[in-house]
Amino acid sequence: MRWARIELNGSPSYAIVEDETVIPVRGSPFDVWERAPQRLKLAQTKLLLPVIPQTFYAAGMNYAEHVREVAEKIGQQPNLPTQADIGYRANNAFIADGEKIVIPADATDQVQYEGELVVVIGRKCRNLTRETALSAVLGYSIGNDVSERTWQKSDRTLWRAKNTDTFKPMGPWIETDVTLENLVTKIRLNNELVFEFPTNHMIFGVVDYLVNMTTCLTLYPGDVVWMGTEGATLNMKHGDTIAVEITGIGTLSNPGVREGL
Amino acid sequence: MRWARIELNGSPSYAIVEDETVIPVRGSPFDVWERAPQRLKLAQTKLLLPVIPQTFYAAGMNYAEHVREVAEKIGQQPNLPTQADIGYRANNAFIADGEKIVIPADATDQVQYEGELVVVIGRKCRNLTRETALSAVLGYSIGNDVSERTWQKSDRTLWRAKNTDTFKPMGPWIETDVTLENLVTKIRLNNELVFEFPTNHMIFGVVDYLVNMTTCLTLYPGDVVWMGTEGATLNMKHGDTIAVEITGIGTLSNPGVREGL
Repeated sequence: MRWARIELNGSPSYAIVEDETVIPVRGSPFDVWERAPQRLKLAQTKLLLPVIPQTFYAAGMNYAEHVREVAEKIGQQPNLPTQADIGYRANNAFIADGEKIVIPADATDQVQYEGELVVVIGRKCRNLTRETALSAVLGYSIGNDVSERTWQKSDRTLWRAKNTDTFKPMGPWIETDVTLENLVTKIRLNNELVFEFPTNHMIFGVVDYLVNMTTCLTLYPGDVVWMGTEGATLNMKHGDTIAVEITGIGTLSNPGVREGL
Repeated sequence: MRWARIELNGSPSYAIVEDETVIPVRGSPFDVWERAPQRLKLAQTKLLLPVIPQTFYAAGMNYAEHVREVAEKIGQQPNLPTQADIGYRANNAFIADGEKIVIPADATDQVQYEGELVVVIGRKCRNLTRETALSAVLGYSIGNDVSERTWQKSDRTLWRAKNTDTFKPMGPWIETDVTLENLVTKIRLNNELVFEFPTNHMIFGVVDYLVNMTTCLTLYPGDVVWMGTEGATLNMKHGDTIAVEITGIGTLSNPGVREGL
């Protein structure tokens, strides 16, 4: 099942996407819900951000080749994580599928995409076990962790490098029927495939993170956990479009524009 | 004016605190509102978290003496920030005034309080100037940035050290009538004054942070910015109560309990 959010009669509404049809629902996937009578055409429907999390978690460095690539770019020694320490991103930076990534006027040309699997939490939970962890997941979406690499090097925190407005595209929807082992992430720059990787080849997997996180913290319905990206990443410039496809989930596609151009 | 949140007829409601009286309102301080007819006694009213932010910002190292003290505790060289790089905390960790700080069973004895000024944003804003910055502030509250110092040293991020459930008491309310220069923060451990400092003697002040942050990000109504703490901090143990008073705002008081005791 695919859960999206749309604007209906001026207010956000959850909706189910079935093939090319969008079916609004009353209620939400985190609570009781029922199908509304409307039927909309997917091609003519603007999809909103599929969820607004209470807390926006991000694994960060979670694929071996990417750790080595980023270390080289920001002039540090590669440092493979030894435990599933979760990090954070910020809600201000979210945009939905199709919306513009705005590259600030004072950013360098080192603005890069990172295609990521997004875990969407379905219920309040604490102290998950390896057996129960995936039962707390509503489904999966796609994120693009846009990053300005020179700021990533100079900021004491990653606030500008990672959380500038529009730097966190997420969507297009939440897919509930997913087999993690089968997923492949494909990244296209202007329709040209620039990188692909097996989505689940993480240093620490979804279960590792959810179990470790919930030793100390409570996850809430709608919280998201971005799982990191693999490989080297390329610069994106004004006019480029970045599409992140995860097989079985969908494609998140966003154009980039430079502020002031 | 003092804005609080209370539970009224089973739902959260904003309310105004006047002396010893709590007056519920319809609406919110971020939008239109009007006083409801009820009058409650403050002493008999449970105050909720005064606001749930979309993004929880924290300045972190923002007072010179504290930077030196923490560096010594975690075995690093003191590193005074040279720009107002904002950091983050996580919503899962919030508790309201009077609620229990739960020290995890596997935490060391190095669990410490940090009394902080909290800035509550009142309106959506971007590109604030030094002249307009404070006009975006609804008011001020008080936070206790509870920290486990051994985890602060070992975590790749600060997720356990800073964001374990219950590690972020905030409240008791939002005070709108504040002159930053006049504030004094007083920290009491079991009713004994252990430290006090001029709240506004920050490395980077409220205006510095709001101006710098909004060069890259949009602030939203209800976002909070925790401004850091000064000085050395002491361990808190099972049975202790930590009270953070900021003159002119109020007092945030929370007992600590160790899990399993």
